[in-house]
Amino acid sequence: MARRRQIYEGKAKILYEGPEPGTLIQYFKDDATAFNAQKRGTINGKGVLNNRISEHVFTLLGNIGVPHHFIRRLNMREQLIRQVEIVPIEVIVRNVAAGTLSKRLGIEEGTQLPRTLIEYCYKDDALGDPLIAEDHIECFNWCSREELHDIQDMALRINDFMSGLFAGVGIRLIDFKLEFGRIWDGDYSRIILADEISPDGCRLWDMVTNEKLDKDRFRRDLGGEVEAYQEVARRLGLMPEGGDNAVLDLETHRKKKGS
Amino acid sequence: MARRRQIYEGKAKILYEGPEPGTLIQYFKDDATAFNAQKRGTINGKGVLNNRISEHVFTLLGNIGVPHHFIRRLNMREQLIRQVEIVPIEVIVRNVAAGTLSKRLGIEEGTQLPRTLIEYCYKDDALGDPLIAEDHIECFNWCSREELHDIQDMALRINDFMSGLFAGVGIRLIDFKLEFGRIWDGDYSRIILADEISPDGCRLWDMVTNEKLDKDRFRRDLGGEVEAYQEVARRLGLMPEGGDNAVLDLETHRKKKGS
Ligand SMILES: Nc1ncnc2c1ncn2[C@@H]1O[C@H](COP(=O)(O)OP(=O)(O)OP(=O)(O)O)[C@@H](O)[C@H]1O
Ligand SMILES: Nc1ncnc2c1ncn2[C@@H]1O[C@H](COP(=O)(O)OP(=O)(O)OP(=O)(O)O)[C@@H](O)[C@H]1O
Ligand SMILES: [Mg+2]
Ligand SMILES: [Mg+2]
Repeated sequence: MARRRQIYEGKAKILYEGPEPGTLIQYFKDDATAFNAQKRGTINGKGVLNNRISEHVFTLLGNIGVPHHFIRRLNMREQLIRQVEIVPIEVIVRNVAAGTLSKRLGIEEGTQLPRTLIEYCYKDDALGDPLIAEDHIECFNWCSREELHDIQDMALRINDFMSGLFAGVGIRLIDFKLEFGRIWDGDYSRIILADEISPDGCRLWDMVTNEKLDKDRFRRDLGGEVEAYQEVARRLGLMPEGGDNAVLDLETHRKKKGS
Repeated sequence: MARRRQIYEGKAKILYEGPEPGTLIQYFKDDATAFNAQKRGTINGKGVLNNRISEHVFTLLGNIGVPHHFIRRLNMREQLIRQVEIVPIEVIVRNVAAGTLSKRLGIEEGTQLPRTLIEYCYKDDALGDPLIAEDHIECFNWCSREELHDIQDMALRINDFMSGLFAGVGIRLIDFKLEFGRIWDGDYSRIILADEISPDGCRLWDMVTNEKLDKDRFRRDLGGEVEAYQEVARRLGLMPEGGDNAVLDLETHRKKKGS
């Protein structure tokens, strides 16, 4: 394979130039960070699992009409995506109080919120991704009012869909983080879902036991990170029944079997 | 005078039961605090100056139709106010970057903002008055959507008026904090401006020298706090020309002189 140009190396992923203009290859690493990268570690096989889980969720979201950057998975750790102009905002959708919300507002973890809450953080590692309000977004023009409106609409639809998806497999969707980006078509642009959706950026609790099946296992030194991520993939039907460590591409598998 | 019942003692003021139902007496102390009360001190005569400055600004705001709690000043340190149900939100109006905004978003102090920015903090000393967004206010029902709308409208009008008032006396209004409250009339309620407007809760910079004429002198150990507060009162025409330390009630003075 020809040497590819690396565009960006982040904490969890690497972006390479894609095969065609306007595309990128997103490579999922096993690196894990928490608390604004003050804590660092590795979760063996995380990249493979997140690549597969994110593919699955993005594909299903596309089916209900949510526009997104995912084109196709290339291999165990890589996926082809559309290049976007990332909106420098982390969109956090919350159904149940946890994490920084609990700490900042003194609400016990696990408290059901009166209604879904959308929070925004300014994507800037040096500043620690500070919480911002809509008025900051408008004042500094991080995206337009119309774009923010689209982002809110999509975030709520994604929340409804994912709440259902996980409820169906016995998992409570506590909260999750989204990133959006702008794609241009001549002078016009529109907002699509970007980045990834995986246990790295979601809080997923087992509905019966409240066991955490997400990156909080790493953040809070609970152990069993790999098993938790595998469990999510397994419940979503993305792991071979045999319990193999590798994540099987079910579609390819089925095709090979001729079904 | 009959012994009055104390309702609340805060960091800068004491509230007493007023002479009639629905009224309170607001007593202005010389106590100064900063950084969520981690720093404490006294500014001699501050209470007298803030009582007078706040009276002046509230009266002028009333003249342009902003509803507020101020009824009348009773003496050097006390004013009669309408009792309200305080909305548990600090409304911060910003024209120029300073303080926590500069720190959180990495914007140099003194940078003119692209447009006026309104920030909200949840009033809870134990949590350090955390920044919140409109969606938190709605989610936890700290005030209704309509009330928040009224608060925004009033905050912007107050900003325009105060920017003009201070510009007229060579002072740049950088930012300021407001509190609002609910008054009931049967089943109906409306929002009025409450608390105080004084150099304790405003950033006021001399237009020519950029000298700080506000509580930042105390926060940052710059010295000359009393002189700064006096200078604001003097420019607003609230100090006797002679330079007496006491704040003169000009209206009473004129009346006594028979003019
Ligand atoms: N379709 C896309 N086009 C361009 N950039 C993208 C796209 N999808 C995601 N990105 C960006 O690629 C990077 C992914 O890397 P990674 O998630 O490891 O970053 P990170 O270290 O977590 O930093 P960040 O805090 O910015 O996410 C992020 O900066 C993300 O915003
Ligand atoms: N009209 C009013 N009716 C009832 N309460 C009021 C009114 N105006 C102001 N208050 C409240 O009176 C208190 C004033 O005291 P002070 O400003 O010293 O409080 P504080 O220690 O600064 O605490 P806070 O952080 O709540 O302002 C505040 O709690 C304020 O919200
Ligand atoms: Mg990231
Ligand atoms: Mg106060």
